[in-house]
Amino acid sequence: MKRYERFAAEISNLIRTGILAPGERVPSVRQASKAHGISPSTVFQAYYLLENQGLISARPRSGYFVRDNASRILDEPHVALQQQAPSDVAVSELVFSVLGSLRDNDTVPFGSAFPSPELFPLARLATSMTRGLRQLSSHAVISDMTTGHPDLCRQIAQRYMVNGMQLPTEELVITNGAMEALNLGLQCVTQPGDLVAIEAPAFYATLQVLERLKLRAVEIPVHPRDGIDLEVLENRLETLPIKACWFMSHLQNPLGASLSDARKAQLYALLCRHQLPMLEDDVYAELYFDQRAEVSPPQPVKALDVEGLVMHCGSFSKCLAPGYRVGWISAGRHTREISRLKLMTTISPSLPAQVALADYLQNGGYDRHLRKLRLALETQQTAMLAAIDRYFPEDTRVTHPHGGYFLWCELPEHIDSLALFQQALAHGISLAPGPIFSATQGFKHCIRLSYGHPWDAASERAMQTLGELLKAA
Amino acid sequence: MKRYERFAAEISNLIRTGILAPGERVPSVRQASKAHGISPSTVFQAYYLLENQGLISARPRSGYFVRDNASRILDEPHVALQQQAPSDVAVSELVFSVLGSLRDNDTVPFGSAFPSPELFPLARLATSMTRGLRQLSSHAVISDMTTGHPDLCRQIAQRYMVNGMQLPTEELVITNGAMEALNLGLQCVTQPGDLVAIEAPAFYATLQVLERLKLRAVEIPVHPRDGIDLEVLENRLETLPIKACWFMSHLQNPLGASLSDARKAQLYALLCRHQLPMLEDDVYAELYFDQRAEVSPPQPVKALDVEGLVMHCGSFSKCLAPGYRVGWISAGRHTREISRLKLMTTISPSLPAQVALADYLQNGGYDRHLRKLRLALETQQTAMLAAIDRYFPEDTRVTHPHGGYFLWCELPEHIDSLALFQQALAHGISLAPGPIFSATQGFKHCIRLSYGHPWDAASERAMQTLGELLKAA
Repeated sequence: MKRYERFAAEISNLIRTGILAPGERVPSVRQASKAHGISPSTVFQAYYLLENQGLISARPRSGYFVRDNASRILDEPHVALQQQAPSDVAVSELVFSVLGSLRDNDTVPFGSAFPSPELFPLARLATSMTRGLRQLSSHAVISDMTTGHPDLCRQIAQRYMVNGMQLPTEELVITNGAMEALNLGLQCVTQPGDLVAIEAPAFYATLQVLERLKLRAVEIPVHPRDGIDLEVLENRLETLPIKACWFMSHLQNPLGASLSDARKAQLYALLCRHQLPMLEDDVYAELYFDQRAEVSPPQPVKALDVEGLVMHCGSFSKCLAPGYRVGWISAGRHTREISRLKLMTTISPSLPAQVALADYLQNGGYDRHLRKLRLALETQQTAMLAAIDRYFPEDTRVTHPHGGYFLWCELPEHIDSLALFQQALAHGISLAPGPIFSATQGFKHCIRLSYGHPWDAASERAMQTLGELLKAA
Repeated sequence: MKRYERFAAEISNLIRTGILAPGERVPSVRQASKAHGISPSTVFQAYYLLENQGLISARPRSGYFVRDNASRILDEPHVALQQQAPSDVAVSELVFSVLGSLRDNDTVPFGSAFPSPELFPLARLATSMTRGLRQLSSHAVISDMTTGHPDLCRQIAQRYMVNGMQLPTEELVITNGAMEALNLGLQCVTQPGDLVAIEAPAFYATLQVLERLKLRAVEIPVHPRDGIDLEVLENRLETLPIKACWFMSHLQNPLGASLSDARKAQLYALLCRHQLPMLEDDVYAELYFDQRAEVSPPQPVKALDVEGLVMHCGSFSKCLAPGYRVGWISAGRHTREISRLKLMTTISPSLPAQVALADYLQNGGYDRHLRKLRLALETQQTAMLAAIDRYFPEDTRVTHPHGGYFLWCELPEHIDSLALFQQALAHGISLAPGPIFSATQGFKHCIRLSYGHPWDAASERAMQTLGELLKAA
C-alpha cells in the first residue's frame, strides 16, 4: 500500500465510523500535510482517490467535504481478470431479446441507453431547425450529400479547437450517429476473421458490430476507475495479430472509467509501435461532471494522434439531440475510404438534422445546456448511489464515475443478473444485465443501471424493489 | 415482323417523310382498323409502339397526335446481348472518379443523379417540419428509434393501399434512403462470394454494393422498353446458383424500361419456382408520366408477392425530399433480420425528417406536387430529345422512357464515352459514361443524360457542344 493509499484509508475509516459525518469538511491539504508529515501532493493524491470512491467531493474554493451518500463505503467493482482466448462473438440474440423488452414506456428505465429526453432542449432545437431550413440554399440538399453540411463541420471543428485540438475539417465525415461512424471505421481496417481488441466489459453494440462483421474479439479488462489494462493490452499486441482496437478512453460504457493523460500517452505509444488503428468511441465526451475545482474538459487519445491512426467518433445523441441521428468521425488516414463506404451504404445523413444542429451549436447556448445537463446527471447519480446504499445487499460493489449516466454494480456472486432482469421487468423495472456486455458472456452477477432520468418517487420505489429481489435471491 | 409492327412502320414512315407533320392527328383507331383491314387491338398495339418510340402522343379524349420532336426517328438503343460469365465487381474506383467530378455547381448537370432541387416543395416541407416537431412527444425521440415513426409508416402504408396493395405496416422498415434499404436487404440474403442477378446496364450503386459485399454479378440484359430479358434470367437461374436478384421493375435506371404486368407475373413465377429473394428497387415509382389517356399508377412485382420473397424498396429522395434521406423497405419474410441489421449499423433514420414527411404526406398536397413534377419532367424530356435530334450524329439511338429523368444514348460505335466525359467536363458539362453502369465495364459508346433540371439556354448550348464533340470524334 502506497503512502497516499494509507492516508486515504485512514480518512475513509473516519468516514465509515461516523467520526467525519456527511457534509463535514475534511482536513485541508495544509493541515493534513502538517499533521501527518506527508507532502501536500500525497494528500492531494489521497483526496483524489477518496473522491473517486465517492466518499468526498470538492467545492470550489472551499476544500473537500464528506458526501451525503458516503455513510457506507460502496466499494468499486473488481477488475475481471480472467484472460480469455480470442473468441467469435455471438451475443446479438441475447442483446436483442434484452433490448426488445426495454421498449415499454411504462417501465422504470434503469436499462435505458439514453438519458431522459426531458433533459434535452428539443424546443430550442426545433427553432434552430426552422431557422436553418429557411437559410438553406436549395442546391445544398444535393451538393452537401458527400461531405456533410459545411456549417456543421465547421461547428464541430470549432469545438475540437476550444478543447485544444486542431483537427482538419477535411478529415471529418458526418454520419448517421456514432454507430455508423464506428461501423464504417472498423469495416475499413478489418477483414472477416480478423482479431479486434475490445474492452471487457464492453458496450454491447461493439459486440454486435464485431459479430456482424465476423470479427473475433480479444477482450482487455477495464479497471473501474483507471480504464483499460494497458499491460494486458501490450501483452496481447505482442502475442496476437490484432488488426484494430475499439476503446472508450473517456467515461467508458458501462464502467464510466476514464484514462488519465499519462495512460492515454502510454496507449498512443502502443498504437504507434504496432501501427494499430484505433476506433475511439467518445460519445460521452461532453458528459463529464464539472462541479469540482480542478475541472478541464478531458482530451481524447485523438489529441495525440500525429500519425492519423485514431478514428475519433463523436455524437450528439447522448448530450443534445437523440433521434436526430447525427454523429461524426475524425478519421485521420482513413478518411477517404470511410467517405466512400458511407456513399455506398447510406450516402449521407439527413440534411435537416445537420442544419438544425449547426444553427443550434452557433446560437442555441450549447454550453449552458451542457452545464445544466451535467448538474442534473450528477445529482441523479448521487440519488442512485444513496439508494443502492439504502436498499442493496451489504456486499454490493459499485462504480462512482465522474460523468455519464451509468452505474455498474457488482452484486453478490450468487446473483444471476439475467434472472434478475426478468424478475425486475415483471415489476415494471428495466436494467441491463452483465452478460450483454461481454463477448464471452461473463459478468453474470453484474448489472448496469442508468441514472439518466430525473429521480422521483418511482425511481426510489424501484430501487427498493430491486433491493428486495436481490435479498430474496 | 408482326402485323402491328408492320403497320407502325408504315405510320412512322409517314412521319419520317413529313406526310404526317408534327401536331397532326394520326388516323383514329376506327379509321385505321377499317382502312387497313386490321383489328382495333392491332392498331392500338402499333400506336403504343409509336408512342414508346416518342413519335406520337395521346391526348385524353382526342386521340393520337404526331409529337413535336418526331421530325426524325430516334431509334431506341440495341439490347446488349453478349452473355458474360459471372464476374467479380470492381467498378467503384471508376464510379467515384466520375461522381467526384460531378460535384461542381457550375457544370450543366446532365450527369446528375437527382432532379433539380427547384422542382421540390422544400419550403412546404419546412412548414411540415415545424408543425411535426411541435406535435412530437419528447419520448418519441427515443421510443421511435427501432420501428420508424409510426405516422410515417401509416402514410406509406396508405399510399400502397391507394395503389391497390395491402402491405402490413409491421413489414415496413424506415431507412436512411433506399440505398440503406437495398444494402440491408441484400446483406441479409447473401454471403460473400454469392452470385446475384442484376441488370445490364445497371444503376452504378448496385455494382458498388455488390463490390462492397464481395458478391459476384450475373448480368441480365435489359431491353430499353420491355425491361429485363426474362428468358436469359430463366436460363441463368437454371444453370447457376444465384442467391438473390436486384431489379428495377419500373423506370429502370439508366434505361427507363418498365416491365408490363404480364412480364411482372412471369418474373414472379420465376422467383417462386427458384425461391429467389428479390430486391425491388422502386425509387422512381412516382415519376411515371401520366399525361396520356390510359394512365394508372404502375404496380410493383411486390403486389404479387404472396410468399414474402420480394423486398420492395422505396424512397422520397427522387420525388419529394432529396437530402432528407428517408426511404423504406417492405421486407416480407426478411423484416425481422433487416430491422436488426439496421439497429446494428445506423440504429434509426433521423426523426425530424420522418416527422416532416409524415406531416407533408398527410397535409402538404403530395399528389398535386407529383402532377407538377411529372409534367415538368415530361416537358424536359421532350426538349432533350429534340436537342438530341438537332445536334447529335444521325446514327445516335436513344430511349423514350415513360417517366423518370434519364435518357440512355447509344452513340456511334467509335465513340469512347469516358473520353467524351472528360471532354464534356472541360466544357462545363457533366454526363454519366456507359462503363459505370456495367460490372464488366461494357457500354463504352453509351451515355446517360439527365433531363432532371429545367431546360434553359445553357442546356441547349450544352447539347449543341456535346453534338459537336461527337461529330469531331
